[in-house]
Amino acid sequence: MTAEAERPAKMSPVSTAWSHRHVLDVDALSRADLELVMRTTDEMRDVLARPIPKVPALRGVSVTILFYEASTRTRVSFEVAAKNLSADVVNVAAASSSVSKGESLIDTVRTIEALGADMLVMRHAVSGAPYLAAEVFGGPVLNGGDGWHAHPTQALLDLYTLRSRLPGGSLEGRKVVILGDVLHSRVARSNIWTLTAMGADLWLCGPATLVRGFEGWAARGAAGRRFTVTSDLSAALRDADVVMALRIQKERMSSGLLPSLREYAARYGLTRAGLELASPDVIVMHPGPMNEGVEIAADVATGPRSVVTAQVANGVAVRMALLYLLAGTRAAEGGQG
Amino acid sequence: MTAEAERPAKMSPVSTAWSHRHVLDVDALSRADLELVMRTTDEMRDVLARPIPKVPALRGVSVTILFYEASTRTRVSFEVAAKNLSADVVNVAAASSSVSKGESLIDTVRTIEALGADMLVMRHAVSGAPYLAAEVFGGPVLNGGDGWHAHPTQALLDLYTLRSRLPGGSLEGRKVVILGDVLHSRVARSNIWTLTAMGADLWLCGPATLVRGFEGWAARGAAGRRFTVTSDLSAALRDADVVMALRIQKERMSSGLLPSLREYAARYGLTRAGLELASPDVIVMHPGPMNEGVEIAADVATGPRSVVTAQVANGVAVRMALLYLLAGTRAAEGGQG
Amino acid sequence: MTAEAERPAKMSPVSTAWSHRHVLDVDALSRADLELVMRTTDEMRDVLARPIPKVPALRGVSVTILFYEASTRTRVSFEVAAKNLSADVVNVAAASSSVSKGESLIDTVRTIEALGADMLVMRHAVSGAPYLAAEVFGGPVLNGGDGWHAHPTQALLDLYTLRSRLPGGSLEGRKVVILGDVLHSRVARSNIWTLTAMGADLWLCGPATLVRGFEGWAARGAAGRRFTVTSDLSAALRDADVVMALRIQKERMSSGLLPSLREYAARYGLTRAGLELASPDVIVMHPGPMNEGVEIAADVATGPRSVVTAQVANGVAVRMALLYLLAGTRAAEGGQG
Repeated sequence: MTAEAERPAKMSPVSTAWSHRHVLDVDALSRADLELVMRTTDEMRDVLARPIPKVPALRGVSVTILFYEASTRTRVSFEVAAKNLSADVVNVAAASSSVSKGESLIDTVRTIEALGADMLVMRHAVSGAPYLAAEVFGGPVLNGGDGWHAHPTQALLDLYTLRSRLPGGSLEGRKVVILGDVLHSRVARSNIWTLTAMGADLWLCGPATLVRGFEGWAARGAAGRRFTVTSDLSAALRDADVVMALRIQKERMSSGLLPSLREYAARYGLTRAGLELASPDVIVMHPGPMNEGVEIAADVATGPRSVVTAQVANGVAVRMALLYLLAGTRAAEGGQG
Repeated sequence: MTAEAERPAKMSPVSTAWSHRHVLDVDALSRADLELVMRTTDEMRDVLARPIPKVPALRGVSVTILFYEASTRTRVSFEVAAKNLSADVVNVAAASSSVSKGESLIDTVRTIEALGADMLVMRHAVSGAPYLAAEVFGGPVLNGGDGWHAHPTQALLDLYTLRSRLPGGSLEGRKVVILGDVLHSRVARSNIWTLTAMGADLWLCGPATLVRGFEGWAARGAAGRRFTVTSDLSAALRDADVVMALRIQKERMSSGLLPSLREYAARYGLTRAGLELASPDVIVMHPGPMNEGVEIAADVATGPRSVVTAQVANGVAVRMALLYLLAGTRAAEGGQG
Repeated sequence: MTAEAERPAKMSPVSTAWSHRHVLDVDALSRADLELVMRTTDEMRDVLARPIPKVPALRGVSVTILFYEASTRTRVSFEVAAKNLSADVVNVAAASSSVSKGESLIDTVRTIEALGADMLVMRHAVSGAPYLAAEVFGGPVLNGGDGWHAHPTQALLDLYTLRSRLPGGSLEGRKVVILGDVLHSRVARSNIWTLTAMGADLWLCGPATLVRGFEGWAARGAAGRRFTVTSDLSAALRDADVVMALRIQKERMSSGLLPSLREYAARYGLTRAGLELASPDVIVMHPGPMNEGVEIAADVATGPRSVVTAQVANGVAVRMALLYLLAGTRAAEGGQG
């Protein structure tokens, strides 16, 4: 019990710099916020390296994980993160819940709060659903992915992974390529924000039908953000420091937006040959789950440049950091944390 | 660890007045039993108000929650209640279990006991199933809802909610209306018992097809119970102190017992206009999940007279009380509690 | 907290005799290994007999239970076993996970490890899948059943149950009958190995289509193993010391390998009349879930000779023993345990 009961010596008190009640998307986070999340994640990595990777920071705090879409990595990652902080976790999967009886999201969220939830993690197929939940729920809401809109914890774990892998730990001026079905990707949308905010030279690459409409984002972004949209894979990969392949959702095939899987793999799949255009130190990422042989070749997915497993491991630490920071704002508002 | 490890100062030893091994329906509970549940629930509300809402009362006790029907609020409510008492909780959902392989209920219950369960919470689509389980299972069985038959914890949380909201805390002579599909409602059946037992002037109101057969209940009940069945909504709502709207299950539409949802909403939906007939202090209840705009208007569901959220919150406390009382009978029979 | 925090006085340090990193099937276990599992299970039975059946042996160890097939008894048994040892348990059911998005087993296993899992328990419809997982996963893998191939924990709990019930605790020379659909049974395959290893006189009995091909096993086994294959139920049951009825999977009906259920029950169902041929002290087993009235008559399933419930209870103890022994090998390799 010792390790669990003692206050982690290395864990600093929650910074008063953190002022957000929810984490719904990354566009609400300033550069200083991002830095605070990164530093707090460093501390959580230290916790995870202990023989018993637990701290009592969220003891007595009840976290409900409400997922309306299937998930292994994100759902389990939040569950493990919350338990590592000694929170009590309740899982609610939409398929096996009364959500299937047609209850409205608002009623479900009110019910979950009345059942004792202090914090809510949710995933929903409808873009914006967590914003609606945040209006109703009395505590912090963490978005675990909503429609095509946002996946902030994925973008933050990607950022953390890149900073720990890039020489000097900086994205400034680094060429980062997001490759594939950008149109339907909440991972891409959240990453565009954080990566350009940290100074990356961001390239979006994919079939024209799947990157359409993103040119305008560069203009809407803050001044000085670097942003290129292309369907030319070679141009994108040339001297790239980072390539992030996105999952192709096979169910999109019927939409007519995608060629056949085989043709897609041939034209936009990330292969060892393609990577030879990139920097020799290129970092290969994928949010998972991967369709090996489609958007990413098997030998690239598990090759020496891949950090896919590190992304998953860092995901637990980033989510611990966010739960910890959000619990601090709860405390500041009079709850316990 | 302190709050979790110490015995709750305010929690009295389990009353020797509690003699029930199971909670299968409310009709087995005397008025003294009901009062004991209410007082114990008061103590559990105190526990829930603590910074860390946990007591070690059921430490080492294993509670299995076996649900053959989808549920969020009841399943999670039992899970949270058991965990707040420091019990170990195992969830078994029928859809993802070997129950789908055709194992009989009796075998499943024997198996769950052999796996170490000390207490069993169950929901089943077949009326009476928990009684069968109680014959086989060695420990206490709590009915979380069986078919159209009974939902005792719902009736008890409704009773607790009413007593805490009604002036003087008494139902004696209060006009309480249960509105809607009474025929298919286990919530209604259990509430009829407790509410009339506590002296309420109970009205059942709904389309004739959905309240048929209940006139006889008044005669079968104990002497002095007040009980009216009507299809006249205005007569029912006039001067009502409490209106409990029941969920319309849309899948009943095809049975021919119900008009269209729109027509149902127009004739029997609980609206602000209808409530003007009731007492100005009328209390509006719903067991959830709600079809807003059908059996209850959205502005009534979340309006100032609604106690729907309080019902959910009290549900956790009531279930803690029942688990605690039943664990006491286990202890008295030689188990630990 | 006392019982949970103290080291169990009666639990011996992990034997250095245990050298297996995984438990994928029983054929890798020597007779000395089997004896060690049995002795460790004895100790776990002592733990289960305590008022609070918990020891801190696996505190800080994260166990992920990844089941690609529906299960109650095996999944819950592992969950309870791991929690009794104070491990942290994460459940991943394939149906509600991103496995349904087509992620490969290897990726899923890598992801689960990156999420923090120290030990992996898995069930999969494909024979051999846990071997593949063990090649990728960094910690111990326990096979919870793979295809028709193996179900080692079932065979070990059956062995434990028999030794505790047979006079003298020895299988040497005892006539043991496995009855039914041997062809499709992983339970049978694993039991054949352990029972003959312990010296039993093993009989396989069923319709010719369902025992075909097993005659060769006797030849392939170690010298001296006693093994008979027959379709003659009377010959099999005569003077039997043990009869283990196997589950008939009704979905096999369409394959043409089985007669109708009624005909199967009439010819190969285990009935009270049939048991009169067996030893008066015959032990009746079934791995569950049972089709009462098909492969086993209801009065036999729950009769005085049946040890079905003991099998389930012993399953928890055996799985505790295996998790404990495997955690020891983790410790020896530098992890904690």
